[in-house]
Amino acid sequence: MQIAMIQDKIVPAEELEPVYLDRGIFFGDGVYEVVRSYDGKIFALEEHMQRFANSLTAIGISSVDLDQIRSRVLKAFDTAGISNAKIYFHITRGSAPRKHAYDVSLKPNFFLTVTESEDDSEAKTNGIAVSTHPDWRWKRCVIKSLNLLANVLARQEAANKGCDEAILVDEKGFITEGAASAFFAIFGRTLQTTALTANILPSITRKFVIRAGKNIGLETMEKSLTPQEASDADELFIASTTNDIIPVVRFDEKLIGNGKPGKYTKLLIQEFRSFTV
Amino acid sequence: MQIAMIQDKIVPAEELEPVYLDRGIFFGDGVYEVVRSYDGKIFALEEHMQRFANSLTAIGISSVDLDQIRSRVLKAFDTAGISNAKIYFHITRGSAPRKHAYDVSLKPNFFLTVTESEDDSEAKTNGIAVSTHPDWRWKRCVIKSLNLLANVLARQEAANKGCDEAILVDEKGFITEGAASAFFAIFGRTLQTTALTANILPSITRKFVIRAGKNIGLETMEKSLTPQEASDADELFIASTTNDIIPVVRFDEKLIGNGKPGKYTKLLIQEFRSFTV
Repeated sequence: MQIAMIQDKIVPAEELEPVYLDRGIFFGDGVYEVVRSYDGKIFALEEHMQRFANSLTAIGISSVDLDQIRSRVLKAFDTAGISNAKIYFHITRGSAPRKHAYDVSLKPNFFLTVTESEDDSEAKTNGIAVSTHPDWRWKRCVIKSLNLLANVLARQEAANKGCDEAILVDEKGFITEGAASAFFAIFGRTLQTTALTANILPSITRKFVIRAGKNIGLETMEKSLTPQEASDADELFIASTTNDIIPVVRFDEKLIGNGKPGKYTKLLIQEFRSFTV
Repeated sequence: MQIAMIQDKIVPAEELEPVYLDRGIFFGDGVYEVVRSYDGKIFALEEHMQRFANSLTAIGISSVDLDQIRSRVLKAFDTAGISNAKIYFHITRGSAPRKHAYDVSLKPNFFLTVTESEDDSEAKTNGIAVSTHPDWRWKRCVIKSLNLLANVLARQEAANKGCDEAILVDEKGFITEGAASAFFAIFGRTLQTTALTANILPSITRKFVIRAGKNIGLETMEKSLTPQEASDADELFIASTTNDIIPVVRFDEKLIGNGKPGKYTKLLIQEFRSFTV
């Protein structure tokens, strides 16, 4: 590479900062995690570290010391001093002139941010509206990668309709998951969600939601739903690291239950919270 | 966002350079183009600008002045003074703390590099080997976006097998295109390639290849091929902006023709070259 240009400024190759050649930006060639803390305590860090390790392996980034990454996460969390924090971190394959195939000796880039958790008490109390969107994502969503444009476009369309999440629907007409959440329905005393496949992110919150469901006496069924089935559910909710459980009270144009968070969803929120202390 | 961390260095939010918060890296939320010059002349710039405009529109980046972008491309090309140059440029939605839904007032980021074109004379003379790989890409490949991890993984696996390109095969068993190229077969006097759909990049080189085919008296058929059909072709080649036409002489384990570039492929290379002067 001879020269680069940033906005309208020409930059000689030798003066270009490596961050501009991050394969994360050229290809989304990296993976990420989000963890959060409740009252000063990071929740399920080891589960997130394990998933992060799986994602790194899946895309062939092998030179990462996960103990070092864990130390960085803890150091950043301590330094920020935020009791209810959202910690985002990613690793990309490294910086190099753009070329699809990569040099295995590249040094990975690590980046992290710590942010105060948003106040989700209103969403938890009143529930949110969601809208369906075609699932345009790639076919390896089991990998938590930086290729998230499909998620962005779906979430933005939902936002334009006044909804807080997009529920993704695959080509066969089944719900996969939310743009940035797992999706659950309750029928009677049965908690239903999609089974984990190569195209579903193995949500850590999902695992704890299922455990919470068992604790409050719900049956679990892992089976895909159609939008029609979902809109006929007694209760719906989404689950994510950032906001754990958020009741869904409107699905496309349809009110769910009586338009208020359902009783089991409220119990699940309480039960989940007990895991975090 | 309160603090960030780059490698093992804590950075207060107010000291963080915006490039670290580029939505291009968080989400691959941007689109790109590659143009090249032959002997000092950029080929098909207007076609690339039009496709770039289409990509920007498709992802809802609306505040870009395309005349300004064209001027930047030309300025960078002039400044670099490289006769046979590859010019890469992308625009991302802008820099902001990470959140899927976006603020429409974000200022897009522009980045460009100019590189000397690689010498592809050996590949053109002797042909290359390709290997098939499942097409894991997202479902809107008509958009030339920065979500390219599937392409990277496919190309890398091909490289590990000693191949120069991965030919992507969809879930129905049909070839879509190469990881970074269009894919063509010749049967008798018929030039065959996949029809353009929402999941095929509208390759500009493809358009000129089809024109070249007509000029040398070939029929064109736009119809998907299976790997089996491709391996039975008289001739195969890939086409891309970077290297226009490159003969394919091995497809997975199968030699194509007599293992040397085919006669029509060689004619197409000549004919294509005449468009670039």
